[in-house]
Amino acid sequence: MRRNRVHLFVAALSLVLFNSASFAEAPKADPARAPIEKQGAAFTEAFNRGDIAAVAAMYSDDALVFPPDGEIVQGRSAIEALWKGTRDSGMKDLAFTVLDVHSSRDLAVEAGKADFKIQTANQAEPSSQTVKYVVVWKRQKDGAWKLFRDIWNSMPPPPK
Amino acid sequence: MRRNRVHLFVAALSLVLFNSASFAEAPKADPARAPIEKQGAAFTEAFNRGDIAAVAAMYSDDALVFPPDGEIVQGRSAIEALWKGTRDSGMKDLAFTVLDVHSSRDLAVEAGKADFKIQTANQAEPSSQTVKYVVVWKRQKDGAWKLFRDIWNSMPPPPK
Repeated sequence: MRRNRVHLFVAALSLVLFNSASFAEAPKADPARAPIEKQGAAFTEAFNRGDIAAVAAMYSDDALVFPPDGEIVQGRSAIEALWKGTRDSGMKDLAFTVLDVHSSRDLAVEAGKADFKIQTANQAEPSSQTVKYVVVWKRQKDGAWKLFRDIWNSMPPPPK
Repeated sequence: MRRNRVHLFVAALSLVLFNSASFAEAPKADPARAPIEKQGAAFTEAFNRGDIAAVAAMYSDDALVFPPDGEIVQGRSAIEALWKGTRDSGMKDLAFTVLDVHSSRDLAVEAGKADFKIQTANQAEPSSQTVKYVVVWKRQKDGAWKLFRDIWNSMPPPPK
């Protein structure tokens, strides 16, 4: 009898802890977050190995990219040229930190930060940079999420 | 009989013209475009007359703003301080040009350009600037569209 009570208490406690954990996690569990994090990992993996055609294929046909100090880039071949130029100019070791994903039916907005290194021909050591970004993803007819709007800008300049 | 035929012909022609017009308009007529353009006009009107509390009230409670060379700004009072600081530093005559609006249920993404003037204390004449932006709007429970994510960056530097 005593042993049963202990079991019952442990079971009840587990239930309470499990429910608390579920409740605490619930507001962050956007259904688009997992597929979008996976796409982000595929993006950096493709970029870092130099497969820029695979990077460009992750954008929707009607995608727009907004690079700082540049015009709006429209269409997959122009987007591929943008990323090829960026990589050729010495950008490497790209990594994303996803801060938030929020979706509604076929649109999802991701906010995050991107870290990368720049290694130009006349630099002995690569320099590290961080930017913040907003990516809007659009779910395609086959269910895949593709980048639809992609914009980023600089963090505060380092203290002098 | 002849008069009836004419009526029938006119009715049929009207139907064809009406359908053609609807078809031609369809790809651009996102249902969120008109309310969002109206909100954009209210934003610039409030900013230009210096009612920064009204500007901040147009953002959702959970809004994030991504100013270039700055940290991510979270929450309405921090957003109000950002815009107050920007206006106090000499920004004026803000105007938006909406390029595209695309919505899915409760999220809409707007792409556009913003023109404004900067007039600092040590400038005889104001300088003009243009930035490109992406704003993600989130429809609130009362049906109103509010700014949820707001990010912009610079256009190409002018030729020297």
